[in-house]
Amino acid sequence: MPAHPLNLATALLVAEWAAMLAFALSGLMEAARKRLDAVGVVVVAGLTAFGGGTLRDVLLDRRPFFWVQHAQYVWAIVALAVIAMLFMRGRHFQPTERAIVWPDALGLGLFAASGTLIALATPLPALVSVLMGVVTAVFGGVLRDIVCNEIPAAFSDHRPYAVCAFAGGWAVVAVHSLDGSETAALIAGTLLTVLLRALVLWRNWQLPAWRID
Amino acid sequence: MPAHPLNLATALLVAEWAAMLAFALSGLMEAARKRLDAVGVVVVAGLTAFGGGTLRDVLLDRRPFFWVQHAQYVWAIVALAVIAMLFMRGRHFQPTERAIVWPDALGLGLFAASGTLIALATPLPALVSVLMGVVTAVFGGVLRDIVCNEIPAAFSDHRPYAVCAFAGGWAVVAVHSLDGSETAALIAGTLLTVLLRALVLWRNWQLPAWRID
Amino acid sequence: MPAHPLNLATALLVAEWAAMLAFALSGLMEAARKRLDAVGVVVVAGLTAFGGGTLRDVLLDRRPFFWVQHAQYVWAIVALAVIAMLFMRGRHFQPTERAIVWPDALGLGLFAASGTLIALATPLPALVSVLMGVVTAVFGGVLRDIVCNEIPAAFSDHRPYAVCAFAGGWAVVAVHSLDGSETAALIAGTLLTVLLRALVLWRNWQLPAWRID
Repeated sequence: MPAHPLNLATALLVAEWAAMLAFALSGLMEAARKRLDAVGVVVVAGLTAFGGGTLRDVLLDRRPFFWVQHAQYVWAIVALAVIAMLFMRGRHFQPTERAIVWPDALGLGLFAASGTLIALATPLPALVSVLMGVVTAVFGGVLRDIVCNEIPAAFSDHRPYAVCAFAGGWAVVAVHSLDGSETAALIAGTLLTVLLRALVLWRNWQLPAWRID
Repeated sequence: MPAHPLNLATALLVAEWAAMLAFALSGLMEAARKRLDAVGVVVVAGLTAFGGGTLRDVLLDRRPFFWVQHAQYVWAIVALAVIAMLFMRGRHFQPTERAIVWPDALGLGLFAASGTLIALATPLPALVSVLMGVVTAVFGGVLRDIVCNEIPAAFSDHRPYAVCAFAGGWAVVAVHSLDGSETAALIAGTLLTVLLRALVLWRNWQLPAWRID
Repeated sequence: MPAHPLNLATALLVAEWAAMLAFALSGLMEAARKRLDAVGVVVVAGLTAFGGGTLRDVLLDRRPFFWVQHAQYVWAIVALAVIAMLFMRGRHFQPTERAIVWPDALGLGLFAASGTLIALATPLPALVSVLMGVVTAVFGGVLRDIVCNEIPAAFSDHRPYAVCAFAGGWAVVAVHSLDGSETAALIAGTLLTVLLRALVLWRNWQLPAWRID
C-alpha cells in the first residue's frame, strides 16, 4: 500500500491550509483588536501561523524552515491580511472567536500530530517528541499574545487547550510504535486532539484553578 | 576593481557604528523611561543593537554571531551606557526620539541591506532573504519593546518602518541579480530604505488603520 | 586526582536539583499570582528552570538540550506543580519570595558557573563565555516575566542579580585559565556568585538609578 494515497494526501493538504489560515486569522483578529497597523497585522498573523513550527525547528535544529520551502504560505498570509482588511472595512464584518474555533481546533490537532511525528523521526524520546508537538501547536498563539502584550491565552484560559495537544501527541506515539505508519499516526493524533477539544468546548471543562490568596 | 576600495570600506564601518549606536541609544532611552536599573539599561541597549542580527543568525543557523567575533561592539554598548548615565545625570540632558531618528533610519537601511545580502549568500530564495533583512533591521526594536512590556512600535506606530526595510531588501535583490557586486547592492538597499524612511517622516505618511469597532 | 570524587559529584547533583527546583518554584509562584491555569503554571515553572540553559544551547548551537537527555527533570517539574497545587490548597500555605531566596541564589551561582564552563569548552572568548553564563542563570527568570507580562525583575529590581552572575563567571574564567580544573572553576564561580548575592541581600545594595525626568 502506498503511504499516501491521493485522496488522503489531498485531504491532508486541505486540512493543513485550513489550519494555517485559522491560526493566521486568530492572529489577525487579536492584532486588529490591539489596533496594530497593517504591518503589525501581517506580522502577528504570520507569527501565529508559523511561529510554533519555526520554534520547533529551531529547537530541533532543522533547516530549512517549512515556510522557506513553501513561499506560497508566506504570500497567502499577506493576501489573507489584505483581503480581511478590505472585507472588514466594507461590511462592518466582525470576525468573532466563535467563527474560528473549529478551524483552530483542527490546526491544534494537525500541528500537534505533525510536530510529534517530525520529532520522533529525529529521533527523540517519546516525551520530548510529544512536547515538541505541543510547542508546534501552541507556541504560535503564545508568541501572538506576547507580541500583543497579553498573558498567553493558552496558559490562562482555564479551558484545556495544550492538554488536548499533549494527549494527541501520545496517540501519535502509540500508533507509530504499534504500526509504523506515519499516516495512521497523524490521523489518530489529529482526531484525538480535535475530539478532546470539542468535548472541552461542548462540556465547558475547566482546568483546576490556582489561587494564592 | 577591488570589491571594497578603502574609502568605501571606511564609510561602511563608520555607518555601521553609527547605526549600532543609534539602535543602542533607542534601547537605552526606552529602558530609562521604564525606570530599569543599570543592568536592564545595558541589556536592553544591547538587545536593541544586536537582537535583530542575532535572531537572523539563529534562523539561518550561522555561527559565530557577529558580536562574538567583534567583542569591541559589546564593550562599546557597556561604555555607551555608562557615558549616557553620567551625561544624563550631570546635565539634565534629555535624549529625545527626534535626536536619534536619522541614525535610526541609517541603521534600518544598513541592517536591512546587509541582512538581505547575508541570506542571499546562504543561498535562500529572494522573498525569504528580504524577510531576513527585515528581521535584522526591525526585531532588535521588537525585542526591546517586548522586554519593556510594550506593544512593539514597529507594529503599531502606523508610520511605515518595516515597509521601508522591505523595499530596501528588494533593491538589494535587484542590484545583486543584475550586477553581482555586493557593495553596489548594499549601497542601493541602504539608500532606498533611508530615502523612503525620510519621505515617511517628512510627509507623515500613514499605514492604513485597522479597526474592529 | 580524579576530576569528580564521589562526594563532590553527589554534592553537585544535590545542588543542581536544589537550584532547578528553586527556579521552578519561583516560576510557579509568579504563575499562581497571575492566576494562570494549571498548564500555565507547569509551563512557566519549566520555562524558569530550563529557559536559560535552553537559550544558551540555542545560541551555542548545542544539541541535545540537557532536559532532553534527562527526562527526569521534566517529570520533576510536573510533579512539583501537582504537589505544590495540592499543598497550597490544603494548607493555606503561601510560598513567599523569602522562602526561595537562598535556593535561588544557589541556582544563580551554579547556572552562571556551569554555563560559563560550557561556553569556554566550545571554545569561546572569555567575555562571551561569561555572558553565556549570565544568560544561563538569568534568562529563565526573564522568560518567566515576559510570559507573565511583567518587566523582567532582573532588569528592574535595582538589587544586583545578573551582576553577581557576571562576577562569578569571571571567577570561573580566572580559575580555569590558572589551574585547568573544571571542578575548581565551578566551585569558585558558584561560591563567588552566592557570596555576592548574599552580601547584596544582607546590605541591601542598590544599583545606580536611572532617571529621565
